[in-house]
Amino acid sequence: MNPLVYAMDGFNPDNRALMTQETIFHNANGLIGIRSCFEEGYPEGMASIRGTYINGVYGISEMKQAEKLYGFAEEKETIVNVADVQSIEVWFGGERFTLFEGSVLNLSRVLDMEAGITARKAHWRSPEGKEVKVAVTRMASFERPEVFLLEYALEAVNFSGPIRIVSKHIGDVVNYSNPDDPRVASESVKHLSPGVPELLGGASYIKTLIPRSGISFCSGVKNVFSKPGDETIEVSGTSAVHTFSCELSEGETVVLRKYCVFTDDRRHEDIEKSAIAILSEAVDAGAEALLLEQRTYLDSFWDRSMLKIEGDDSLSSSICFNLYQLMASAGRDQISSIAAKGLSGEGYEGHYFWDAEMYIQPFFILTNPEIAKSLISYRYSCLGKARKNARIMGHKSGALYPWRTITGSECSGYYPSGSAQYHINGDIAYAVTSYYLATKDLETLANMGAEILYETARLWLDAGTWNGSRFELHDMTGPDEYTCIVNNNYYTNLAAKHNLLWAEKAHKILKEAGMGFAAEKIGLSDSEAQDFKTAGLAMYLPYDEKLGINPQDDSFLTKKVWDFEGTPKDHYPLLLHYHPLHLYRHQVSKQADTVLAHFIFQDAQSLDVIRRSFDYYEKITTHDSSLSSCIFSIVASTLGLRDKAFKYFGKSAYYDLFDTAGNTQDGIHTANMGGVYMAAVYGFAGFRLKEDGVHFAPYLPEGWTRYSFKIQHEGCRISVVVEKDASVFTALGKSKNIKVNGAEYALEAGKPVSIPNLSN
Amino acid sequence: MNPLVYAMDGFNPDNRALMTQETIFHNANGLIGIRSCFEEGYPEGMASIRGTYINGVYGISEMKQAEKLYGFAEEKETIVNVADVQSIEVWFGGERFTLFEGSVLNLSRVLDMEAGITARKAHWRSPEGKEVKVAVTRMASFERPEVFLLEYALEAVNFSGPIRIVSKHIGDVVNYSNPDDPRVASESVKHLSPGVPELLGGASYIKTLIPRSGISFCSGVKNVFSKPGDETIEVSGTSAVHTFSCELSEGETVVLRKYCVFTDDRRHEDIEKSAIAILSEAVDAGAEALLLEQRTYLDSFWDRSMLKIEGDDSLSSSICFNLYQLMASAGRDQISSIAAKGLSGEGYEGHYFWDAEMYIQPFFILTNPEIAKSLISYRYSCLGKARKNARIMGHKSGALYPWRTITGSECSGYYPSGSAQYHINGDIAYAVTSYYLATKDLETLANMGAEILYETARLWLDAGTWNGSRFELHDMTGPDEYTCIVNNNYYTNLAAKHNLLWAEKAHKILKEAGMGFAAEKIGLSDSEAQDFKTAGLAMYLPYDEKLGINPQDDSFLTKKVWDFEGTPKDHYPLLLHYHPLHLYRHQVSKQADTVLAHFIFQDAQSLDVIRRSFDYYEKITTHDSSLSSCIFSIVASTLGLRDKAFKYFGKSAYYDLFDTAGNTQDGIHTANMGGVYMAAVYGFAGFRLKEDGVHFAPYLPEGWTRYSFKIQHEGCRISVVVEKDASVFTALGKSKNIKVNGAEYALEAGKPVSIPNLSN
Repeated sequence: MNPLVYAMDGFNPDNRALMTQETIFHNANGLIGIRSCFEEGYPEGMASIRGTYINGVYGISEMKQAEKLYGFAEEKETIVNVADVQSIEVWFGGERFTLFEGSVLNLSRVLDMEAGITARKAHWRSPEGKEVKVAVTRMASFERPEVFLLEYALEAVNFSGPIRIVSKHIGDVVNYSNPDDPRVASESVKHLSPGVPELLGGASYIKTLIPRSGISFCSGVKNVFSKPGDETIEVSGTSAVHTFSCELSEGETVVLRKYCVFTDDRRHEDIEKSAIAILSEAVDAGAEALLLEQRTYLDSFWDRSMLKIEGDDSLSSSICFNLYQLMASAGRDQISSIAAKGLSGEGYEGHYFWDAEMYIQPFFILTNPEIAKSLISYRYSCLGKARKNARIMGHKSGALYPWRTITGSECSGYYPSGSAQYHINGDIAYAVTSYYLATKDLETLANMGAEILYETARLWLDAGTWNGSRFELHDMTGPDEYTCIVNNNYYTNLAAKHNLLWAEKAHKILKEAGMGFAAEKIGLSDSEAQDFKTAGLAMYLPYDEKLGINPQDDSFLTKKVWDFEGTPKDHYPLLLHYHPLHLYRHQVSKQADTVLAHFIFQDAQSLDVIRRSFDYYEKITTHDSSLSSCIFSIVASTLGLRDKAFKYFGKSAYYDLFDTAGNTQDGIHTANMGGVYMAAVYGFAGFRLKEDGVHFAPYLPEGWTRYSFKIQHEGCRISVVVEKDASVFTALGKSKNIKVNGAEYALEAGKPVSIPNLSN
Repeated sequence: MNPLVYAMDGFNPDNRALMTQETIFHNANGLIGIRSCFEEGYPEGMASIRGTYINGVYGISEMKQAEKLYGFAEEKETIVNVADVQSIEVWFGGERFTLFEGSVLNLSRVLDMEAGITARKAHWRSPEGKEVKVAVTRMASFERPEVFLLEYALEAVNFSGPIRIVSKHIGDVVNYSNPDDPRVASESVKHLSPGVPELLGGASYIKTLIPRSGISFCSGVKNVFSKPGDETIEVSGTSAVHTFSCELSEGETVVLRKYCVFTDDRRHEDIEKSAIAILSEAVDAGAEALLLEQRTYLDSFWDRSMLKIEGDDSLSSSICFNLYQLMASAGRDQISSIAAKGLSGEGYEGHYFWDAEMYIQPFFILTNPEIAKSLISYRYSCLGKARKNARIMGHKSGALYPWRTITGSECSGYYPSGSAQYHINGDIAYAVTSYYLATKDLETLANMGAEILYETARLWLDAGTWNGSRFELHDMTGPDEYTCIVNNNYYTNLAAKHNLLWAEKAHKILKEAGMGFAAEKIGLSDSEAQDFKTAGLAMYLPYDEKLGINPQDDSFLTKKVWDFEGTPKDHYPLLLHYHPLHLYRHQVSKQADTVLAHFIFQDAQSLDVIRRSFDYYEKITTHDSSLSSCIFSIVASTLGLRDKAFKYFGKSAYYDLFDTAGNTQDGIHTANMGGVYMAAVYGFAGFRLKEDGVHFAPYLPEGWTRYSFKIQHEGCRISVVVEKDASVFTALGKSKNIKVNGAEYALEAGKPVSIPNLSN
């Protein structure tokens, strides 16, 4: 079985299942994302999120505060649903094609991750008995990110007669809303002001303004039909409607190819000119060429990124699914990052969180460092707004990144589990240093990374307080949102410590390299850098002598333990059933917090403490967030708790395909997807990226035959194949030293070295 | 000078000054409140809050949450502006009377606190030269609380001619809104659905429904004019317009008497029937009789309540003003309490806070215990909703009173400085026990107080946590809203301790008296009562050995001290200029918190600690709340810091008359008014109400000749006259033992005893 082809057979008309499939089979390429709705539509009364998104293209929504206090955000950026290009109606004489009438003799849906396409194949019998085969192929092009291709093939199986295909390009669409679901917008906001479609050279172009954000975009559609016949194209309001009519003979197949393009004025000077140029180039190249390009692009991607598992086909396919979606979700320019739902839906309103840095960037750092660098450039471009945000929050110096945002403005409406999560600063700093450690890309450090490190370090200095000889951080919220606004959250303090120490380190490195211009630009003196170091070294890290663990924060261990036995199953996730104050008053964690710290900053603590800590927090963590079980898997691997590691891994690996959280319809969970990668590479293979190079401590999970992957480090690629007893490491291209199970090995280029695995 | 007459002369057309006067001269009687707007109106473009309120008559407003979490209130009760009965237009031929045209030769406004009326006297010359004297007298009747009387007298000074008086009764009014002022509603909500006025016996009645709350009220107006002439009464939409026309001779005076009534269906079964009956009784009695009743009522009030200061006329008058407003603001039935702004405006939306119990009730307990009892009956009537509120907040047992409310539902939109202020429970319990100590009214304790004490005690048991042998309270907010959601707030813990111990004590007292039915009703066992005591005795009270003070909470003293020197003057109140997280991260207090605890629960700590504590917190308290300086005054008195006590007292005493906070236009500050009383009686006279009786420790502030007041204790009244060297105590009616400066004195009924004051 090819793990790169994920297929689903049969027709389940259940509304939620279909909405979930819209997410699972969406097409995206880091710039655009289109949910896989049925082109021909749904019966009235059925819900569908008919969404098309451009990364970083947003509107503004009100965010009314029940009691407005100083500095509360009152509006937020929201990713907008842009023009609908996927709608196609088909008529066979007087019968309209829809899977919800007549009989579905066969239906299969496929995500082909080698070809970079999704497909839907239906064999359908109309109420009057006409049998039709419909084959839809859809692709968001990686090589031409503005381009979306939709191929709609129809075969008349048992009849001859007239066919009419109505292909639409609809300018006036709205975002999804559902007043009954608190997880998505409750009311429909009109974001778009579409212009009248222009018809040029057989294509239609719609220029649309988003008045509240001032952004414009242009959508273009060119329909190419395989059979001559009657053809009309007309403008109806803010839509363009292209109709093809002809006679179909029994056994004949006709194909409509819909070439679509999206340009926006955050990226293109003249959106219409660009749209016209890009669209005509794509049409000239033709679908076959586009599909071929796509395959070539993906060959290269999988060569770098494949995480292949042998011995469990379903898990293997699921892992590929996760990695593919990461690549499809990641912005490739300085104005976009990776949204919590990628480009697959409107959940979390298209906002970027710390997920991008702490859960997803590691994958790109090790497989596609150019994308990792692009993510840094995005944060760098937001540094000005982060400085402003710091001022709003009362800080005299430094920059504070917003908890959720599109352009860098704080978009969180409830600051205790939003803006109070200052660790976002440390997370972004951590991504900067990880990228540097993996690439030794001094230029990026000098041009972007250093300024981020310095300004975030300045923020810690301003926000923290000296308590005797201890540097402490008060009134902040760690990753666990079931405990908010606390003093000395262990994770936050460690992230800040790392941030402070690295700011000083980067200053030294760049000064020695004669590249200290960032420090000059922002007036960073050696003595201020020394202050970073002093505070970093003095950073207080809470430790409980009695339990021999790190408390989540200063007062966490004095709280009552949550009554798990008395909590009905349908009361999870707890945040939907308990007042935040009640949660805050108990020892209960929504997600990995101290355990995350033990993974990210493992060397800060002994394995004995980490083991006790893991045991302690495991009992009180609900994993109500998708960012949790992957981390527990990694730390379980580190501690040799292999059964547990595997159980948590499985939970993460199938999160979206099994719709574990019940909300995949609103979009994929990108952070968890990155976590799946880490649970394998950092967990099972024990990978760590440190200042002294790369480390491994691999083992093979029970039941698997083998797994393999490649990582990049300082321009060298290393292939890793893990089997039961030993692992084979091969440096590709050039020689490389690595550490395995604590011992150093020199890998000669191209020569596999087999190293025994540690038994548990 | 009579301190019971507050007068203001001259005409200042400044808009804010006039709006402030609408508050200062409003008429209220605990049931209805009517702002003193100019009957004849204001020029277009001038703002005025033309408000009429009925205590406890409310509408519902949306309270949109930017991020809705479980248990967040999404709507709130809002006091509504009811029918306008004060509008009167006067025409002299073609000229309409208004102070904003022509010349104001003389204007005086008076609040006569002996007569219980306000008056406005104007001598005005019209643009055409007609001179008119206008004398307006207004009264909200204490004896007939539904009744408002308005007398409008006009004298033609230098002309003869026609006069037309148009008296209106307007059903369709809206609440005040100002989009530029965050302290009042930003948009006008339509709360009222008034019916068509009915005309009966020369009076007009309007029945109005408040659809969102379901409350109905009826307003009635009967105009009686002194001179026969043309008279029409007509209905225009939802208004009734009564017009009188006649010829006026030079030197002649005519008088319009407007008898008005308000009934609501929270209090009257048939609002219209009641309105008709009450109005006709008032009209039959006549204005003179109503005014006489009012004076008799007030004679009795001042006899019980007067706090007379000799040697500072202005201060004396200001103190009477404060006490008068308390009486005018206090609800007298179980569905109303004392709103933050009384019945004088819409600030804080007519909500009741802890102010009623902790700042105002002490005045009534000592002077008008029936009103104090009524306030307890209000809280008792809300106990069911408090139980529901506790469930919303996650508590399995007990009752949690809402932070701000009208009917008992939580109406606070920002829970960290709202619902998290659990001390409200302890405050209400404190009011119950104080009332009991002052009156030994076992019946009220048995019927209402005990159930409140038990259910609030249950809440503490459920909310608290045992940390070893210490009972602790986590994640709550104390009185100081610049530090929220903390562990072991000293004030909160003491209030809870008092609550728990008294719940057990009340249980014992009532059981012994054979009145234990409240315990039976709610299933309170002896062993549960014992649990109250155990937790109360084990209550943790933070103490800092190094500084020798009680920290405000567990981590308060580890925070950075606020940079007061670097804070511009126009950045106060801080909450309007700094993000809450920034405030929370610093040692800065909005108002008395630990210092309040030192007053309320003085015996919990030694005077040495209280002195150090006072010094410490004084430096970091901004008094951004009106609930602060009075408390600092009391504790300063206790500590012998007499200059300071006087300075803080002065700040409190003039708060509204000097518009110190700049928002008296939105209503008076009732909590501060109660605080002024306490600063004199508890502060200067060192009064304390304890289980062993009443204590005094009086002194005379510098510059005063003498001050005097009476208090009631267990049915006995004690007159206190404090002079420089000694104070004279007289038991009125029956003998009484009191403690003065720690020594016990037996007062024989009617025999003054002079006791030397302690020198400082």
